[in-house]
Amino acid sequence: MGILIKNICAVLPGQTPEAEFVPTVTDVYLEKDRIAGIGQAPAGFTADRVLDGTDRLLTPGLVNAHTHSYMAFMRNCADDLSFMDWLFGRVDPIEQKMTDEDAYWGACLAILEMMKTGTTCFNDMQMNIHQTTRAVKESGMRAVICRGLVGSGNDEAGQTRLRQAYEERDAFRDCDRLSFRLGPHAPYTCDEAFLRIVAEEAKREGMGIHMHLSESVTEIENCKKDYGCSPIELAQRCGLFDVPFIAAHCVQVTDADLEILKKHNVSVVTNPASNMKLGNGFAPVPEMLEKGINVCIGTDGAASNNSLNLIHEMSLVTLIHKGTHRDPQCVSAVDAFRFATIGGARGLGLEDRIGSIEVGKKADLAIFRLKTPSMWPVNNPIAALSYSANGTEAETVIIDGRVTMENGRVLTLDEERILKETEKIMKRIGNR
Amino acid sequence: MGILIKNICAVLPGQTPEAEFVPTVTDVYLEKDRIAGIGQAPAGFTADRVLDGTDRLLTPGLVNAHTHSYMAFMRNCADDLSFMDWLFGRVDPIEQKMTDEDAYWGACLAILEMMKTGTTCFNDMQMNIHQTTRAVKESGMRAVICRGLVGSGNDEAGQTRLRQAYEERDAFRDCDRLSFRLGPHAPYTCDEAFLRIVAEEAKREGMGIHMHLSESVTEIENCKKDYGCSPIELAQRCGLFDVPFIAAHCVQVTDADLEILKKHNVSVVTNPASNMKLGNGFAPVPEMLEKGINVCIGTDGAASNNSLNLIHEMSLVTLIHKGTHRDPQCVSAVDAFRFATIGGARGLGLEDRIGSIEVGKKADLAIFRLKTPSMWPVNNPIAALSYSANGTEAETVIIDGRVTMENGRVLTLDEERILKETEKIMKRIGNR
Repeated sequence: MGILIKNICAVLPGQTPEAEFVPTVTDVYLEKDRIAGIGQAPAGFTADRVLDGTDRLLTPGLVNAHTHSYMAFMRNCADDLSFMDWLFGRVDPIEQKMTDEDAYWGACLAILEMMKTGTTCFNDMQMNIHQTTRAVKESGMRAVICRGLVGSGNDEAGQTRLRQAYEERDAFRDCDRLSFRLGPHAPYTCDEAFLRIVAEEAKREGMGIHMHLSESVTEIENCKKDYGCSPIELAQRCGLFDVPFIAAHCVQVTDADLEILKKHNVSVVTNPASNMKLGNGFAPVPEMLEKGINVCIGTDGAASNNSLNLIHEMSLVTLIHKGTHRDPQCVSAVDAFRFATIGGARGLGLEDRIGSIEVGKKADLAIFRLKTPSMWPVNNPIAALSYSANGTEAETVIIDGRVTMENGRVLTLDEERILKETEKIMKRIGNR
Repeated sequence: MGILIKNICAVLPGQTPEAEFVPTVTDVYLEKDRIAGIGQAPAGFTADRVLDGTDRLLTPGLVNAHTHSYMAFMRNCADDLSFMDWLFGRVDPIEQKMTDEDAYWGACLAILEMMKTGTTCFNDMQMNIHQTTRAVKESGMRAVICRGLVGSGNDEAGQTRLRQAYEERDAFRDCDRLSFRLGPHAPYTCDEAFLRIVAEEAKREGMGIHMHLSESVTEIENCKKDYGCSPIELAQRCGLFDVPFIAAHCVQVTDADLEILKKHNVSVVTNPASNMKLGNGFAPVPEMLEKGINVCIGTDGAASNNSLNLIHEMSLVTLIHKGTHRDPQCVSAVDAFRFATIGGARGLGLEDRIGSIEVGKKADLAIFRLKTPSMWPVNNPIAALSYSANGTEAETVIIDGRVTMENGRVLTLDEERILKETEKIMKRIGNR
């Protein structure tokens, strides 16, 4: 199967920090699951399909580096509330009543929204094994799946969750688009002994880790009280940073914390909407960039955002730090583009396969319409994506060489059915 | 012409602060330019058209309370720059080369984008008379037009601009959708003597005023140096607040400034994207609400945003103050909805005509699709509009009783032509 994307403005990797990305009008050739040529057809190429790229932008598929996809049906059910009322008054009671099947439909809804806004890969922390994975496998998405782990010492609950993580990984070995990490939830839901076990398990199994770290002031205060150190210092001393590690949030961090993250090559996922919405504040992204920390971007779950549209997060990350630092040059559109593409890929250990438009990489791509009243005229396509796009400009999505969305319609999922099922779920379990 | 909007979730005004707005599934009846009935047909009503409102949200058309529409073609031409490089390096040189015809096409592009995202009225400050007005008249939009005034004492340039303001107002008296205010640009482009003249003229002509106030730290410092007071104190002592006054920005304000605004019943337009993007910071919106100041919301011009999508601003205004105040209950979705509807109408002196769904008011309405992967399930429609919507859910727009947009297609403007003309403009005058 050869696909030719003709005459498209492709955001290619540049060679210098000044031109980190170079939008270039060119032709892009796909063969099977790979990018096979840029500007020049590979030997023996035949196009089974030709996509007209005129007035369109080709980007690497966006990487949503932190979410909880099953929560999609909870959007707008718990807003403008204190964190405790949000969690214990609304989200927890719904999760208590949620079935595995509900989690599956939630993940389907999430994937639908993500694909429709140009995301081709996401990093998920979840509690219902075989559900998000099933939705990913069926939809043609790419994902890193992390069984959320909560535990105390070597208690049975924690051990069961660890076993489930391996069980899920082993059950989906046939799907190349899925990879797996361990997901210790947070320093306030896993004690030090359990975190040490998780670190050992991750090393033994050769798995990376995905964890919430330093999200709120309360978390920092409690960690100091319980362990006499910051959550990041705790993670370091438990050996969690000895494996590939992606840390969600890192809002409340000290300079010493940032040094630790840099030293251990930890990637940080910033979640601007969620961090603001829950009243946690602003992650020090400019300071992370200064230290050379790899920054990714995520939406968090729909219960605390309430959107899974990564374009919206790109807009937020470029704007808010200009505001807090009173500096219009702080966190540029190019930075946001890096966070949402190669930064995310790097954070998930997938930078050799995805995250940039290069020959040999997986054909995970998004095509955005540029000729719309909100994007036109195209004075700068990268700026347009962060500052002007709303996400629905995504027209075509290709994952692993397969067209999963065309003309804004997701081909691999039954949208009508998903909307019906998720509505039914909230009618059943969403009551206050 | 009778229009029946059947079975729609209409955001009706509530009767208590706890239920300021009440989403209600009902039928809404329009006759000529007015809302003629809610839930019950007015006597003798016949429906020439029936719009199915199932799974849709009916809101008052949104009010963009501060913009410069002609700038739409400059989007993404000057980003991530210092304010001086932005203004003098990029925006000014383009404006110098811009013709009246260019300003007209810029305004057409702006109106297209605004209508497509549910805005039915905007407050514009412009320099090319008869151009934005012409675009508004042709497109069926509603607008308040303010000739930007710059002057020193009673210099000829300032006097000419004042005459132009009246000339434009008089030339468009036949269009009921247009109203006019005087637009003294800012304390740093109008001296005190000129501001006193403008205040006198506004009183004599019975016109309101629209002005940039307290946008940046530099503005405050210079005002203190030149006049020994804040821009808001200066405006007060010049008598500018003796007429209906809408102040754009008010980012750098003291408590004393806020007291003055409240005392004179000045409405404030917050422009979150622009204030962040230019590095000016965050307007103290929560403090304004505490004082009982009427808050409106605006996009500012596309050169400093770079979008005219008011839904995006609603999202920003609900998120950023939660972040700066570390308080998830700060500036709610209901607040954002008020800013974008009745707040804006009040700020423009149009609250008797627009800004809410009430019998007798003008039929200025927007219909948003709810059954989309980003809005569904609809756990709370007002929250969905601020936190989940991207703006393109706007499906139908009615202004002054006329359907100006249907199925996402603007009926009153030639989209293809506008995109072509605005592209040509930037090719001609956008060179660096």
